[in-house]
Amino acid sequence: MSEGQNTRVLLAERPVNRAPVASDFKIERVPVAEPAEGEVLIRNHFLSLDPYMRGRMSAMKSYAEPVRIGGVMPGETVGRVVASRHAGWRTGDTVMAHTGWQEYGLVPGERITRIDTNLAPASHYLGVLGMPGMTAYCALLYLGEPQPGQTVLVSAASGAVGQVVGQIAKIRGCRVVGIAGSDDKIAYVRDELGFDAVLNYRNSDGVAKDFDTLSREVAGLCPDGINVFFDNVGGVVHDAALSNIAQHGRVIICGTISVYNELEKPDIGLRWMRQLLVKRARMEGFLVYDHAHRTEEFRQTMAGWLREKRVIFKEDVAKGIESAPDAFIGMLAGANRGKQLVRFSQD
Amino acid sequence: MSEGQNTRVLLAERPVNRAPVASDFKIERVPVAEPAEGEVLIRNHFLSLDPYMRGRMSAMKSYAEPVRIGGVMPGETVGRVVASRHAGWRTGDTVMAHTGWQEYGLVPGERITRIDTNLAPASHYLGVLGMPGMTAYCALLYLGEPQPGQTVLVSAASGAVGQVVGQIAKIRGCRVVGIAGSDDKIAYVRDELGFDAVLNYRNSDGVAKDFDTLSREVAGLCPDGINVFFDNVGGVVHDAALSNIAQHGRVIICGTISVYNELEKPDIGLRWMRQLLVKRARMEGFLVYDHAHRTEEFRQTMAGWLREKRVIFKEDVAKGIESAPDAFIGMLAGANRGKQLVRFSQD
Repeated sequence: MSEGQNTRVLLAERPVNRAPVASDFKIERVPVAEPAEGEVLIRNHFLSLDPYMRGRMSAMKSYAEPVRIGGVMPGETVGRVVASRHAGWRTGDTVMAHTGWQEYGLVPGERITRIDTNLAPASHYLGVLGMPGMTAYCALLYLGEPQPGQTVLVSAASGAVGQVVGQIAKIRGCRVVGIAGSDDKIAYVRDELGFDAVLNYRNSDGVAKDFDTLSREVAGLCPDGINVFFDNVGGVVHDAALSNIAQHGRVIICGTISVYNELEKPDIGLRWMRQLLVKRARMEGFLVYDHAHRTEEFRQTMAGWLREKRVIFKEDVAKGIESAPDAFIGMLAGANRGKQLVRFSQD
Repeated sequence: MSEGQNTRVLLAERPVNRAPVASDFKIERVPVAEPAEGEVLIRNHFLSLDPYMRGRMSAMKSYAEPVRIGGVMPGETVGRVVASRHAGWRTGDTVMAHTGWQEYGLVPGERITRIDTNLAPASHYLGVLGMPGMTAYCALLYLGEPQPGQTVLVSAASGAVGQVVGQIAKIRGCRVVGIAGSDDKIAYVRDELGFDAVLNYRNSDGVAKDFDTLSREVAGLCPDGINVFFDNVGGVVHDAALSNIAQHGRVIICGTISVYNELEKPDIGLRWMRQLLVKRARMEGFLVYDHAHRTEEFRQTMAGWLREKRVIFKEDVAKGIESAPDAFIGMLAGANRGKQLVRFSQD
């Protein structure tokens, strides 16, 4: 394959306190590299685009190192082995790896995971059976501890994590309320996923509602308070939810996408912390990698739910690696409909 | 005793978004009441003044009902039974009850707790062996889960709760850092309680330091981050601590005294919530009444520590019920030196 070209997306500039734009990325074509001893060359079929990547574009210290300027944008991919110098892998194997935003990835053999396309389509390993699905599963069940009959509120309810959270909460017998930002997302969450209620955090003109409105609307949909608040969003939606937390409620901080374009302003945060005291509520940050020991439990359980159609999962697929920056920029603004993927055009 | 007078302190006005002043209280003298069947009349020796009482002066919904205007200010007291129409109690018994800010209290017999003055002085049952001590014990050990060698940061370190928290953390082998607001508090915490380090959150002119200064100073005293942050304060001290939380750190929200005079402004809160995500930290509100089942464990353990002089406890005693409003106003401003009590002048 070494005679081919590898198209990849680099970080050209760090957006500071603003949304990323196309010129923050640079698309380049380089020859496909040869694997060294112990390495495997993967031709990618799907790239996962996830909100956490916005954090990696920032130089701010977080739970992972920033991408360097000129470095390949990071990301998880599924693809097929096209050349191997590692005894564990053969040409044709379907695998998952962190190769980043590029058509071909060169990876040490021990950093690759085999995936079973008989169990589920390859793309699912980047979504409902992958990191977002496992995030939903472990964070909801092990941090949120939802009990039958309790109210679970999910922000970004139609997103890669949110749609799974709500469905698992339904399986566990909870009353599930979602928050999303457009009519078609609302319809998907309510009509296809079966949430009990959904709230649009935007007015009909597309502008986000203010705190008082949101807090009142959340109170209306959660009259007994929120027992588990699964937050992917932060900001005013978080405030509105926390102002309605139930006694001994649990808040899972899974993402803060509403402030991802303002990471360098550390004074943006929640305003209702006193509710934690008043309600003896618990708030906890979550990172799926801390739960690696639950991978097998998660895979088996979720595969069963998918088979039984108790969980469905929507993917929003952009075409071609060149579309990755625009798809990513759109996802941060809420333009995606379900889990955002990039499908490589050579398939 | 019915021929005597009962001096008591009523709530005259609710302070809204300001510190309480003397005219918010009304002192009145009424005849001492006679106990009805099942009731006990107690002559109080000590009244406990606690920050939570500021919350009760507000009409805002919290974990307890507000005091009504014209109602007796609430509070825990120790005293002696002077008349009883309940089979369980006899004249002369030393007891603890919630009689409020008054010299005499009339209480149903089943709402009284016997105290053992052979084990400790009566006043201790309002402090190190009472609600503040049990708050420190249960919240630190059961929510904070401090491990030997870990760093525990305590705000309001010389207060009724803070001084006990730090000493228990030392007993558990932790490195303990305190935050307090005056030179003599600093000296007490460092020299008498044996904290490893103490930080003054005020400049030499008495003005509170800003976030950047506090955050840097906390970082200097907690170079490996804060494993357990026991917060009695909220506000900028909370922000400064949270900006230095360690991975998997635990934050106990026990009090928010810095914002008690701004309860009606709900948009005051912490700014560093994203740290919870980045560090997968946990923040949890605490109320001692949720831990009532641990009372006996606490009493036995703390009595042992007091006997062995592993825990000491400082009390700041005002004289006479008429002094209660000023002592309370002073405590909210940080004027007290240790646990604030009122000793009744008739003793």
